[in-house]
Amino acid sequence: MTDIESFRRAATELLGERGFTCDPELVEPWLTDWRGRYTGKAVGLASPASTREVADFVALCAAHRVPIVPQGGNSGMSGGATPDESGASVVLSLRRMDAIRDFDPATRQITCDAGLILQALHERVEAEGLRFPLTLGGKGSATVGGLISTNAGGTQVLRHGTMRAQVLGIEAVLADGAIFSNLVPLKKDNRGFDLKQLLIGSEGTLGIVTAATLRLLPAIGERRVVWVGLPSIAAARQLLLHCEETAGEALEGFEVLPAHCLQSVLAHLPDARSPLLGEHGWHALVELVGTVDEAERLDGLVETVFASAMERGLVDDAVIATSETQAEAFWQLRDSIAPAERAIGPAMQHDISVPVARMAEFVETVSPEVEDRFPGTRAIGFGHLGDGNIHFHVLAPRGATRGEWEASEGKAISSYVYDRVTEFGGSISAEHGIGQVKRDELARLGDPVKLELMRSIKRTLDPLGILNPGKLVPLAPHGATP
Amino acid sequence: MTDIESFRRAATELLGERGFTCDPELVEPWLTDWRGRYTGKAVGLASPASTREVADFVALCAAHRVPIVPQGGNSGMSGGATPDESGASVVLSLRRMDAIRDFDPATRQITCDAGLILQALHERVEAEGLRFPLTLGGKGSATVGGLISTNAGGTQVLRHGTMRAQVLGIEAVLADGAIFSNLVPLKKDNRGFDLKQLLIGSEGTLGIVTAATLRLLPAIGERRVVWVGLPSIAAARQLLLHCEETAGEALEGFEVLPAHCLQSVLAHLPDARSPLLGEHGWHALVELVGTVDEAERLDGLVETVFASAMERGLVDDAVIATSETQAEAFWQLRDSIAPAERAIGPAMQHDISVPVARMAEFVETVSPEVEDRFPGTRAIGFGHLGDGNIHFHVLAPRGATRGEWEASEGKAISSYVYDRVTEFGGSISAEHGIGQVKRDELARLGDPVKLELMRSIKRTLDPLGILNPGKLVPLAPHGATP
Repeated sequence: MTDIESFRRAATELLGERGFTCDPELVEPWLTDWRGRYTGKAVGLASPASTREVADFVALCAAHRVPIVPQGGNSGMSGGATPDESGASVVLSLRRMDAIRDFDPATRQITCDAGLILQALHERVEAEGLRFPLTLGGKGSATVGGLISTNAGGTQVLRHGTMRAQVLGIEAVLADGAIFSNLVPLKKDNRGFDLKQLLIGSEGTLGIVTAATLRLLPAIGERRVVWVGLPSIAAARQLLLHCEETAGEALEGFEVLPAHCLQSVLAHLPDARSPLLGEHGWHALVELVGTVDEAERLDGLVETVFASAMERGLVDDAVIATSETQAEAFWQLRDSIAPAERAIGPAMQHDISVPVARMAEFVETVSPEVEDRFPGTRAIGFGHLGDGNIHFHVLAPRGATRGEWEASEGKAISSYVYDRVTEFGGSISAEHGIGQVKRDELARLGDPVKLELMRSIKRTLDPLGILNPGKLVPLAPHGATP
Repeated sequence: MTDIESFRRAATELLGERGFTCDPELVEPWLTDWRGRYTGKAVGLASPASTREVADFVALCAAHRVPIVPQGGNSGMSGGATPDESGASVVLSLRRMDAIRDFDPATRQITCDAGLILQALHERVEAEGLRFPLTLGGKGSATVGGLISTNAGGTQVLRHGTMRAQVLGIEAVLADGAIFSNLVPLKKDNRGFDLKQLLIGSEGTLGIVTAATLRLLPAIGERRVVWVGLPSIAAARQLLLHCEETAGEALEGFEVLPAHCLQSVLAHLPDARSPLLGEHGWHALVELVGTVDEAERLDGLVETVFASAMERGLVDDAVIATSETQAEAFWQLRDSIAPAERAIGPAMQHDISVPVARMAEFVETVSPEVEDRFPGTRAIGFGHLGDGNIHFHVLAPRGATRGEWEASEGKAISSYVYDRVTEFGGSISAEHGIGQVKRDELARLGDPVKLELMRSIKRTLDPLGILNPGKLVPLAPHGATP
């Protein structure tokens, strides 16, 4: 019996037929990442049903030196949940663990298994008049564990922070199968290093998140959604500051997109129309929220914010959604940018952040630079201006072939963009993580002190190098020095 | 020339006369902790003037194997900044480094050196119509670096979180003298492990914080401060939930104290008087805040919140401060509890948290238990009910001698309280950290998996064991296994 065979037999014995399979039909759907950039191979697919089973399975993998690729909804943007092509790893899916362990609406805390899907979480807490203040396009597949492991962002970060800010406690299985149990619903706890913070955003390289306690907020009572036409991204930045100053805590969202993005979306969605007449170089989508009693206050606030913005010449034009349906239609325009751009042709997508104060300058400087250096391309930035995080996409010249262009000119473009981001004091990954897609760029551009710290922490917590090797940490697989 | 002499000579050469001293008169004031529980000895007092000097000095200490005790305002509550009695360590004061490096009111971020005093930070940002949303009794001496190293709390945590939530970036010197530079004013950055989170709250055992970028908020425009009389702490908890539901984001503070605390304060402050007529078992101090335009809204909110609370029988009586002076007077009653209790006689003070939902139960159960087991004592809990964090003080029997009682019965009381806190799923240190005062209790009651993780991270980041040995991490000095 080969090693692999004995591992498979032991895994089946431990997890049962439902918990471990090598059936290619069942395994294959989970071997390719959501964006279709990577396809790997695996020894099998493990789907444990409890934290105890995860722990025992990790111990088994450690004994057999089988690398583990943890996976939630398989909707990550950086290939972090896809095994490599060696076929030596096992995919550990958390999807079977999707229970809500404890939910007390009065304390606004919920404890759930890692495999719970974001949309199911939303629906469960909304039924109690609460909300979980993080949402993103992949909410129908993204799991709580995946969101934690990647410290996910989305469109509500401006007001509520990333996933890290929502997590009160976690439970995780470490590389030796020990269970790190930190589901304490304590708001204040200064008993030493905050170890959960190390696991959040570590993409499964330090431990496998099995459960979490999350904070909840009261449901939004009233909202006002405004579509704004602006002359420039610099004007959008001015409007953002103005909104922050005037609307304060009521400001829930502030997204921007250039005219080109809106045109792509309108071409992509046959029934959609532009919220504003006339041409505007840039657009902003602004959302203000309040409690159910604050309808009047919100109307006054919108009036105050935009009347003074118009007066100060910050905006060209603005329209308030007059119904919830129209508000949703405005948001749909924003949420359709990615698929609309994809329909046009190949593009290099860069999820970057720079200091908020320099974002307008970045877009205005680097877009023409890229278009000059790589003739025929088109550079556009859109997204979370309020977070200093934009999605900077460079569309291929007309006629470019997807895979081929991406691997040649596309790669050079990305390197150029990341160089410039680094020069602007920014991050080459604002919210999508590093995974495999940016690992080498992190090695190239990262601060050597930080990289060395990451490597030594990785070696300490995962001495055998079995937790998601090849991802995030610029280390050769199995802990060898690169 | 002995080793110590050669170290002192090298330190003086590196930092100059102003930067390094062995003069007992200059060193001695920094060898005793704020509460007067510990007095140590030191090789000398280093006061570097820049991050570069800190880095070079740490490298020097590493070369000479001289342990370093980092110190900010020396106002910590757990002895974490006080050297041991061996005299082998050097105290590294960050107080000379108190510059503001960068302050952009528009982005609401400030970057400052670690030695900047909290009160100076408050004043600087208030001059620009902003505020730093963390405050505590020791604000006149506590430094930014110390607040970060201990993840300090205070009276605004309910609404704004602990120090961790205010920190956007840090700069720190690691055990080998390398500079970890993470002062990026990026709101989103997912380039691997969030290493700054590991340094926050690590009490100088993993690195020495030298600077930070902090988030700021708009200044409070209007506030309403209400003093409330309640029948029980359970009623206070109900009122808190009611306030959270009704006042939402406007709720800024919620502190509680039992009748006995108020009596002690009134006895201690000759000019103070009780805000309410009549006797109440418990009192709450509630603060609601809004922008400068929201005076009317706040008045309406206070009216709504307390009229309905009265109606529902949640409160016995309530009075709104009619002026800023009166509001300050209400807060002074709260802030005087600690000195008032101290004036009565010896007490064991426990800074603990339990799940918010169980706080009332904890106080109602454990107070009589303690008083029964230790005749003549009096147990009282007060503080940050909204954070699940109370200061649980046990006053000595009449006539007890301070040092003697604390070392005997006092110690037994603390162990009992910490046992019960642990049984309630709580933390033996909510906001004051571990330092030396709770290190052995952490070793006794801490989760072995977490303790082992802490130890291995400590060994990895500080292999020579020179960073604040004997504090926080239950390890023998110099990295030996206990």
